[in-house]
Amino acid sequence: MDLNADLGEGFGRWALSDDRALLDVVTSANIACGFHAGDPETMRRTCELAAARGVAVGAHVGYRDLNGFGRRFVDVPPETLTAEVLYQVGGLDACARSAGTRVGYVKPHGALYNALVTHEAQADAVVDAVRAFDPTLPVLGLPGAVWLKRAEVAGLPVRYEAFADRAYTAAGTLVDRRRPGAVLHDVGAIAARCVVLATEGRVRAVDGQVLRMPVDSICVHGDSPGAVAVARAVRSALTDAGVALGPFPGGRDRLSA
Amino acid sequence: MDLNADLGEGFGRWALSDDRALLDVVTSANIACGFHAGDPETMRRTCELAAARGVAVGAHVGYRDLNGFGRRFVDVPPETLTAEVLYQVGGLDACARSAGTRVGYVKPHGALYNALVTHEAQADAVVDAVRAFDPTLPVLGLPGAVWLKRAEVAGLPVRYEAFADRAYTAAGTLVDRRRPGAVLHDVGAIAARCVVLATEGRVRAVDGQVLRMPVDSICVHGDSPGAVAVARAVRSALTDAGVALGPFPGGRDRLSA
Amino acid sequence: MDLNADLGEGFGRWALSDDRALLDVVTSANIACGFHAGDPETMRRTCELAAARGVAVGAHVGYRDLNGFGRRFVDVPPETLTAEVLYQVGGLDACARSAGTRVGYVKPHGALYNALVTHEAQADAVVDAVRAFDPTLPVLGLPGAVWLKRAEVAGLPVRYEAFADRAYTAAGTLVDRRRPGAVLHDVGAIAARCVVLATEGRVRAVDGQVLRMPVDSICVHGDSPGAVAVARAVRSALTDAGVALGPFPGGRDRLSA
Amino acid sequence: MDLNADLGEGFGRWALSDDRALLDVVTSANIACGFHAGDPETMRRTCELAAARGVAVGAHVGYRDLNGFGRRFVDVPPETLTAEVLYQVGGLDACARSAGTRVGYVKPHGALYNALVTHEAQADAVVDAVRAFDPTLPVLGLPGAVWLKRAEVAGLPVRYEAFADRAYTAAGTLVDRRRPGAVLHDVGAIAARCVVLATEGRVRAVDGQVLRMPVDSICVHGDSPGAVAVARAVRSALTDAGVALGPFPGGRDRLSA
Repeated sequence: MDLNADLGEGFGRWALSDDRALLDVVTSANIACGFHAGDPETMRRTCELAAARGVAVGAHVGYRDLNGFGRRFVDVPPETLTAEVLYQVGGLDACARSAGTRVGYVKPHGALYNALVTHEAQADAVVDAVRAFDPTLPVLGLPGAVWLKRAEVAGLPVRYEAFADRAYTAAGTLVDRRRPGAVLHDVGAIAARCVVLATEGRVRAVDGQVLRMPVDSICVHGDSPGAVAVARAVRSALTDAGVALGPFPGGRDRLSA
Repeated sequence: MDLNADLGEGFGRWALSDDRALLDVVTSANIACGFHAGDPETMRRTCELAAARGVAVGAHVGYRDLNGFGRRFVDVPPETLTAEVLYQVGGLDACARSAGTRVGYVKPHGALYNALVTHEAQADAVVDAVRAFDPTLPVLGLPGAVWLKRAEVAGLPVRYEAFADRAYTAAGTLVDRRRPGAVLHDVGAIAARCVVLATEGRVRAVDGQVLRMPVDSICVHGDSPGAVAVARAVRSALTDAGVALGPFPGGRDRLSA
Repeated sequence: MDLNADLGEGFGRWALSDDRALLDVVTSANIACGFHAGDPETMRRTCELAAARGVAVGAHVGYRDLNGFGRRFVDVPPETLTAEVLYQVGGLDACARSAGTRVGYVKPHGALYNALVTHEAQADAVVDAVRAFDPTLPVLGLPGAVWLKRAEVAGLPVRYEAFADRAYTAAGTLVDRRRPGAVLHDVGAIAARCVVLATEGRVRAVDGQVLRMPVDSICVHGDSPGAVAVARAVRSALTDAGVALGPFPGGRDRLSA
Repeated sequence: MDLNADLGEGFGRWALSDDRALLDVVTSANIACGFHAGDPETMRRTCELAAARGVAVGAHVGYRDLNGFGRRFVDVPPETLTAEVLYQVGGLDACARSAGTRVGYVKPHGALYNALVTHEAQADAVVDAVRAFDPTLPVLGLPGAVWLKRAEVAGLPVRYEAFADRAYTAAGTLVDRRRPGAVLHDVGAIAARCVVLATEGRVRAVDGQVLRMPVDSICVHGDSPGAVAVARAVRSALTDAGVALGPFPGGRDRLSA
C-alpha cells in the first residue's frame, strides 16, 4: 500500500506544511509544480528530500492560480490546460532529475481535482498532456472520476486513492466538506479504517453500509499541526497490521530506467 | 552555419514577432520558457512549428519578470536561479517532446544574457542548471562571456554566436545600444558582414579593425516588421555564398536519440 | 451620447490596440487595471492621454488572469472579488489623479462582464466594492444585467451601454459570438444602427423586430486594425446626425470635484 | 513616539506574522501592497483590523517580486517604478477607505528600502510617486537616506525611524546583517535602548560611541514567534518610562480629513 500527501506547497518566502516530517511518513509525495503553489527552488529541494528517503515524486498539477491556491475552478480552454499540465510535469521532472529521481505519477490538485471528476473537456485535456509527456506514466485519482476512465481508455496506468480522513457516501463519493461529519478527526478511527481499506479493500459509508473500495494509495494531509500526527498514526497502524508500505507499481520502480 | 532568432515571445493574448515567417528563415529557435515571456500553449505551438520545419529548439531562459520582459537585472540568489533555469528547460522540453523533438540547447535572454557575461555567481548557477538537466546539452552565447568559460570547464558543449546587426568594439564586445551606430540598419551591409562571419570567421569593428570571430551561429532579430526582411536577406546572402545552413552540432542531431 | 472603448490593454512589452487613435474617437476609456491586462505604467500613460483629450477614465476591472486576458470564468469567492475590484479601482484612481483626472465609472471586463449578467454572488461582490470606494461612482454595463439591478438598489448611478457591432436577439440579449451573424462587419450598417440607437433608443434584432434600447453609451472595439476605422465611422455618423458626444452624466463632470 | 511593524505579509493561502497580536502593540502598520506580498483581501482585512484599533495605515511598497518577497534588487526603470508605487498606494488607499481610514504614510520594503538609501534614480522615482498621489503624505525611512533628502526638497513631510533590534555603526548606519552582532536578541537590552531612543534621541553604536538619533518611530519586527514578545516588551518599557505612544504627526491625524 502507498501513502501519499501534498508537499512543497510553499511559494518563495511562504511555506505551509512540515515537509520533512511528512516525508518520513509517506511513500509518495505530490509536489506542487509552480502554478497553484511551489516555486522551482522549493520543488527541487522537495525532490531531493523525497529522493533521499526513497519516496516517489508525483506531479501535483493545478490551475494557474497562486492567489487562490488552485482552489477555484477556472474555465480554462482544453488546449491551454494540456500545455499547462505538460509544462508543470516537465518542470518538476527536471527538478526531480537533478535530484537523481524522476516524476513517477501525476495527480491533479484542488479545484482541478474536483473538476476532472465530471468535466469531460478538461479531463481529456489532462489525459492528453500526460500521454504526450510519457504514455507509461501512472495517474492517480478518485475511483469513478471521468478523467481516470479516459486515462484507462488512453492506455495510461491508472491508480486509485482513498482519503484517510474523509467520510464517504453510500455511492462511494466523498461527503461534501461543508456537511457535518465530512472530515474525520478521531485519530484512532482514522487509523482503523485505513487498515480495513488496505487489508480488505473496504470502507464504511456514513449510512453504515460497507463499500468495496480497492485502492492503490491512501491520501493523508499535512497542512495542519495535527495532520502530521494523524499521518504517523496511519502509518503505524498499517505497519502493525502487517501491511507493506511502498510506492504503487510504476510510481517509482519505472524511475530506475 | 546556424541562424538563430528569439521566438514564442508572446504571453496569452499578446504576441510579438511573426513566428511563422521567422521559422522559415532560421535553423534554431530560441523559445521563451514562461518566465520573461512565453506561456505553455505558445511554447508548445512554437515547438510544433519548429519541429515541422526541422528547426532546432533552444531554451531561451530568463529572469522571472514578465512585466519587464526579462530586460531588468534581478539580483536573484544563485540557488534560486539554478532551480528556475532547470524548471524552464524542463517545461520547454516537455512541450518539445510532445511536438516530436527535444530541447537542443540553452541560451539566456535579455538582462540575464548580459549579466552572465560578467556575473560569476549567476554564471555558475546557470551552468549548474544545464549540467543537472543534461551534461551533454550545448549552451549558446557571446564569445568571452564568463558563463561560457565556466560551461567549458564543466564539460558542457559551448557554442558561440555573433549578432547580425550589432556593431562590435575593437575588443570584440558589443557597442552599447545607446551609442550611435550600435545597431546596423542597412540590409545589404548586414548581409555582407554575415557572409564574412560565416566564411572567414571575421568581423570589422567600429574602428575599422578586422577581428577574428569564429562563431557557430548568427543571431537575427524578429520583433519588428523590418526584421523578418533582414533575416531573409541574411539567409539568401549566406546561401548565395555557398554557406550550408543548419543547426550547430548537438543543437539538433542529438535529439533523435 | 457617450462612446466607450477598451484601452490600455497591454502589459509590459506587449500592446494590443492603437490607443492614441482610439482616444481621438471615444469620449470614455475603459482602462485595464492590472489584473487581466494593464500595468501601472501603461495605466498612468493611458490616463494622461485620456485626460489631455477630455476623455473620461473608467476602471475596466477583471479577474486576476493575465494569461487568459480575463476571458475565463474564475470561481473566485465574493469577499476576494470585492477586495480585488476595490484594489483595481484604487490603483487606477491613483494613476488618474497623477494625470489630473479621476476614475469616472466602473465597467467589468470579459468573463467577469458576462458572469455579472447572472451570477448573483459575484454581482453583489462587485457592487459592494464600488460602493465601498465611492457610493456616487457610476457603473456601466448591459441592460438587464443582475449586477446593475443590484447596483440600482444599492443607490449607485447606473449607466447602460449597447454594442456597435453586436447582433441582438428578440429578447434584447447579445447573439452568442459563436453564431453566424453575431458580429456585424459592414461599416455603414454599424454606423447607421448607432445613429438609430442614439436618436431613437431603438435597435433592430436579428429577427427583424425593433427593440426599445435606451442607452447612455455605445461601445466600440479597438483591438483590430479595422476597428479604429469602424469607431471613426460611428463617430462621424453620430456627429452628422446632430448627436452631441460626451461622457455620460457622472462619468466625468463629477471629476472636477 | 510611534511604533511601526510590517503587517499583512501573506498572499492568498499563505501568511507570515501574527497580525492580530502585533496590531495590539504597534501604532502604525506598514501594510504590504500586493507587489512583494499582500493580496487585496489580506490588505482590506488588515486595514480593518488596524482601523478598529486606531493604528495608522502605511503603504509598504515594494518591487514587483512575489517570489523573492521583494528582497532582491530589481533594476526597474524609474518611470515604471513611479507608476508601480502610485498603483500600490492607490490600491491600499481604496482598501483603507473601505475600512473607514486612509493611507497615512509610505514606507518602502526590503530591497527597495535598501536601494533608496543610495540609488538616486529610484529615489526620485518613489518621491515622484508619493507627490503625485498626495503632496502632503508623510514618508518614513532611514535617517540619511537619499530618498528622504529628495523627499524633503520636494516638500513631503519626512519621518525617521530607528530599528529596535539592529546594531548601528559609529556612522549611524545599520551594521550589515551578515556581521555577528548585527541583530540584537536580548529582550531587555532591546527594550532599554528603545527607551533611550525615545526619551533622549540617542543610541549607542557598536564601538560604544553614543550617537544622536532623533526619530519619529521605532520599527519592531513580527515575522518570527519571538518577535511579538519583543514588540510587547518594547511597548511596555516605553509606557513604563512615560513615553506617550501614537502615530507620528500626519500619519493618522490627517486621515480624518
